[in-house]
Amino acid sequence: MNPLLSAPLSVLNVGVGSFADAIASQGGTATRIDWTPPAQGDRAAGMALARLVNHPRIEAANAKAYRKLVAAQPRLIGIGVAGKTLPGIGRRMILHAGPPIAWARMCGPMQGAIIGAILFEGWATSAAKARALAASGKIGFAPCHHHGAVGPMAGIISPSMPVWAIENAAGGNRTYSNLNEGLGKVLRFGANGAEVIERLRWMRTVLAPTLQAGLARLGPVELKPLMAQALHMGDEVHNRNAAATSLLIKKLAPALLKSGAASADIAATIEFMAGTDHFFLNLSMAACKAMLDAAHGVPYSSLVTTMARNGVDFGIRVGGLGRRWFTAPAPVVDGLYFAGYAMADAAADLGDSAITETAGIGGFAMAAAPAIVKFVGGTAADALANTVAMTHITLGRNNAFTLPALDFAGTPCGIDARLVVDTGILPVINTGIAHKAPGVGQIGAGVTRAPLACFTQAVTALAAAVKG
Amino acid sequence: MNPLLSAPLSVLNVGVGSFADAIASQGGTATRIDWTPPAQGDRAAGMALARLVNHPRIEAANAKAYRKLVAAQPRLIGIGVAGKTLPGIGRRMILHAGPPIAWARMCGPMQGAIIGAILFEGWATSAAKARALAASGKIGFAPCHHHGAVGPMAGIISPSMPVWAIENAAGGNRTYSNLNEGLGKVLRFGANGAEVIERLRWMRTVLAPTLQAGLARLGPVELKPLMAQALHMGDEVHNRNAAATSLLIKKLAPALLKSGAASADIAATIEFMAGTDHFFLNLSMAACKAMLDAAHGVPYSSLVTTMARNGVDFGIRVGGLGRRWFTAPAPVVDGLYFAGYAMADAAADLGDSAITETAGIGGFAMAAAPAIVKFVGGTAADALANTVAMTHITLGRNNAFTLPALDFAGTPCGIDARLVVDTGILPVINTGIAHKAPGVGQIGAGVTRAPLACFTQAVTALAAAVKG
Repeated sequence: MNPLLSAPLSVLNVGVGSFADAIASQGGTATRIDWTPPAQGDRAAGMALARLVNHPRIEAANAKAYRKLVAAQPRLIGIGVAGKTLPGIGRRMILHAGPPIAWARMCGPMQGAIIGAILFEGWATSAAKARALAASGKIGFAPCHHHGAVGPMAGIISPSMPVWAIENAAGGNRTYSNLNEGLGKVLRFGANGAEVIERLRWMRTVLAPTLQAGLARLGPVELKPLMAQALHMGDEVHNRNAAATSLLIKKLAPALLKSGAASADIAATIEFMAGTDHFFLNLSMAACKAMLDAAHGVPYSSLVTTMARNGVDFGIRVGGLGRRWFTAPAPVVDGLYFAGYAMADAAADLGDSAITETAGIGGFAMAAAPAIVKFVGGTAADALANTVAMTHITLGRNNAFTLPALDFAGTPCGIDARLVVDTGILPVINTGIAHKAPGVGQIGAGVTRAPLACFTQAVTALAAAVKG
Repeated sequence: MNPLLSAPLSVLNVGVGSFADAIASQGGTATRIDWTPPAQGDRAAGMALARLVNHPRIEAANAKAYRKLVAAQPRLIGIGVAGKTLPGIGRRMILHAGPPIAWARMCGPMQGAIIGAILFEGWATSAAKARALAASGKIGFAPCHHHGAVGPMAGIISPSMPVWAIENAAGGNRTYSNLNEGLGKVLRFGANGAEVIERLRWMRTVLAPTLQAGLARLGPVELKPLMAQALHMGDEVHNRNAAATSLLIKKLAPALLKSGAASADIAATIEFMAGTDHFFLNLSMAACKAMLDAAHGVPYSSLVTTMARNGVDFGIRVGGLGRRWFTAPAPVVDGLYFAGYAMADAAADLGDSAITETAGIGGFAMAAAPAIVKFVGGTAADALANTVAMTHITLGRNNAFTLPALDFAGTPCGIDARLVVDTGILPVINTGIAHKAPGVGQIGAGVTRAPLACFTQAVTALAAAVKG
């Protein structure tokens, strides 16, 4: 008998587990190594990846891009009007979340929100007329991201809406976001009834000017230290903004009171902010975009600088590949649904808010926010594990954003598209879930993943660029 | 040869480790069980304890007391003036933290704070005259706890100071605390210079009436849900109150703006609160006292209803043993000292704020506040371990105060003096550290423990009561 077979078997099993099961069932010992081939066995993507791994031009580009990402110092400098402030925005243009998409392909909540925006702008006098106008081709639609902006969920920004203006003090680049409307029936979830339009009008005529008066008094608000503090207070600054919003109120309230604004407007403004735990979200998003825009545009960089969804497509952009989007179908989120709703009711993943994960907070910083599992599902251990898993696909740890529960390690920051394809570990995203019909609103929240196909396309394109 | 000795030795070693060392050094195997005798070998306390374990009268009393403790609903009902509000306070009386103590035995910061209070009251015109007056016997000194109140650090409350008034909606009992002065040179750390007295005057003439106007507009503020929310935002609501203070501002600011108070006073009040992360501490303490007072006075109960320190003595009171204090020397805290200071500079453990741990928050809820280890020392794992250890000496888990990092388990709540003596596990306390000289202020913070001797005395007294 072969002496190899007479000794007790001790086997190292790499990949598919059933081989190890067979050995164990015969009394042998099998140590299992969890492994799958790169790009989930996609041979073309694997070959592209092989060309990029440890490529000196990419490593150098990523080092440069990462330095710009973590060096960024986004600060809130004021509030403007979208049509006068956003670069390149037209007079009859409406911006939306995610990669480009035509009216006919848009999901229900996005169409609903656009109808609301048309009514808000006074371009139509009824929802039916607004819908006809939207479908007529006379309104220009474009991603927020093409005009320096980001918006949560449907992400609708129309010309007369107020926008936060953020500047990266380290790079001079500016970004923008709309103002948060609170929960319930709101435009960003596709609602467009009278109370939604009324609130948007109040935000334009009272909230925005009052905040602007406070900001004029206060001067620029550094957002990175505020976000860092919120991470120490149980926020991940994407789906939990309770602490960040409170910290913003603490900063703004004294300035508002000294701004000379009308006392009733100040009271209404503070009350609105105090009742809107997500109020800071739009600032967090614009701050993250300011950091990532600073890092975008380094030739050959494989740093992911955008992840965004329009409710139909999930799109990413990569630092060394210009304005090109790499898209795949947006997943429907298997999350925690509010009573009476289920996955079948849900729009697919929606919103620009995945910019937070792209910048290393949100789902990447879930270790900071164990209480969020009551909202998005899972356990405190899952929250820690999500953060730890993201270290395998990121270029570094952002020491400006530390995680107390991980003994103040920095958040995993800067997604490398190569690492996503190589490991098969998909970026984790905490997200709200919209009803697929317009006007219903939020029906749940959950943890989802960016689709691999976006990253394999990007890696393939980068391999072609390196070769070319 | 004895067959027992010819086989390899396999020994179970209980307690003192050096026996196991001897066996291990001879090649034997010893499994070590960490055990110490109850009451650290104090035979009398051990005998007393034996009489109390599983005693039906004590078990029934504790069940009743615990129900009252967790059923309490402390709410902030307004602000009063100490001399007109606190039960039993005299015209020339000054209240202090911890168990009773005479002027001559008081620590430096407490004497310094009393001198400040005398100046604030206008009972003397210089620090020297104030000291002479304090030593003359013409001022009455008494624990805050004897007059329904609690105060952090020196805990000084004099008749014209404003006090928070808290009512337990479930039991009707009321408690009080002074208002937090912020950090730096403050009375509670023994400072008594002109700026300290000036700030106290401003608090009396501007802060307190403005807050009272806001509270009158707002109505009672439920403190338990606010504290529960703060525990989900990284506070342990003793040495971290950043979230709780923010939440209070969010609640109060709109009411203040509608209160009719002068706009400049409102601005100054909000600014003061926004700049005082510990502002909520005094409310947290009074809320905890309201819960514990509700549970106090059940005959035969071994529930600890007070832990408090005066900088010389550490004292506890027990639910079934009336107003009696059980005291032992207060420890000096081996904590994190600010640059330039060390343990040799520190006053011994000081303040009524251990009422928070007595009620199951503070050090008992450290699992909620991993970021606090930067302030009190240790790691995030230590913070979790401290909370878990406290489950061994408490009567239950308070499901009103849940801990996200422990998958929303309730905080360990309701210290049983018997369990402390039996296990030798001492209640953990997060605390600030005062300089031993008056007027210097805070020089550090740390994690300390209640002295065992307080609990052995209480257990011995309870055994006598049960016997009698």
